Amino acid sequence: MAILDFYDLFLEQLRDLFSAEKQLIEAMPYFKSISTNAELQEAIEQHFVETQGQVIRLENIFNDLGEDPAGEPCKAMEGLIQEGRLLVNKIDDPDVLDAAIIAALQRVEHYEIAGYGTARAFARQIDRDNIAEILQETLDEEGEADKKLTSIAEGGFFSSGVNEEAVNE
Amino acid sequence: MAILDFYDLFLEQLRDLFSAEKQLIEAMPYFKSISTNAELQEAIEQHFVETQGQVIRLENIFNDLGEDPAGEPCKAMEGLIQEGRLLVNKIDDPDVLDAAIIAALQRVEHYEIAGYGTARAFARQIDRDNIAEILQETLDEEGEADKKLTSIAEGGFFSSGVNEEAVNE
Repeated sequence: MAILDFYDLFLEQLRDLFSAEKQLIEAMPYFKSISTNAELQEAIEQHFVETQGQVIRLENIFNDLGEDPAGEPCKAMEGLIQEGRLLVNKIDDPDVLDAAIIAALQRVEHYEIAGYGTARAFARQIDRDNIAEILQETLDEEGEADKKLTSIAEGGFFSSGVNEEAVNE
Repeated sequence: MAILDFYDLFLEQLRDLFSAEKQLIEAMPYFKSISTNAELQEAIEQHFVETQGQVIRLENIFNDLGEDPAGEPCKAMEGLIQEGRLLVNKIDDPDVLDAAIIAALQRVEHYEIAGYGTARAFARQIDRDNIAEILQETLDEEGEADKKLTSIAEGGFFSSGVNEEAVNE
């Protein structure tokens, strides 16, 4: 489908995010199931619930615009998830595995931060500040999820020294 | 190749970034060639040169570690670039096209910010603070490149009103 103007580009961005979130909802339970750190499992579970809310927010935006959320599958999220799965499947050590899960999920969060940041800018551009505000709510959650993962990595793996034995064994 | 410890995971992350940067060097000239805004073309050119320097930094790190930079192709960057190409190929309007190029490149920058942030954390974890400092230089450049793209988008498309006609034509 051709993109003729900023409104079409905005819709395309929303559809890309919609596909990305749906893929993420499919993938998150797997990453939770293989993680070994309780705090990490809890963070993934919490963000899984948030992600379901983010999908509903997008559905509400599409309803408001009178548009269909269905679009092409988000190729970038396909690559991000595939890369994450390939990575974790190479790892047996539980501490290294948890660090790799965090690495994969932070790439995903940053993809979404870039995507929602762009969509918010486009919403303002087409004078839909109400939609920009809704997208901001998701953007805040993605930022918090990213920070939470950093804090688990730094607290659990890198600062406490608990997992030092996983280095260069 | 199995990942046994944090050192292996660190190497895997560096190889992923090395593949990502190489793919980006192949892709950037295309995005520059189709962009119509002079400031955007200049920003892509500047970051193209920076990216070549970032590859050299990674090669130096691999030399320092006595390791081979060759690894599996970065699937996420493959997806990001493929998605960007698919997006811009749907657009004729020059202002909308430039906005889409910025959207695609900011997703790429955020991928790299997440990747280098993780690699820097792992470098510290394995007590290679010298490598963490080198990775920080690249991280600073990626952050600046992202900000520059935002500033072009806000200045060129969204604030000046120059491109307002591209909205809902």
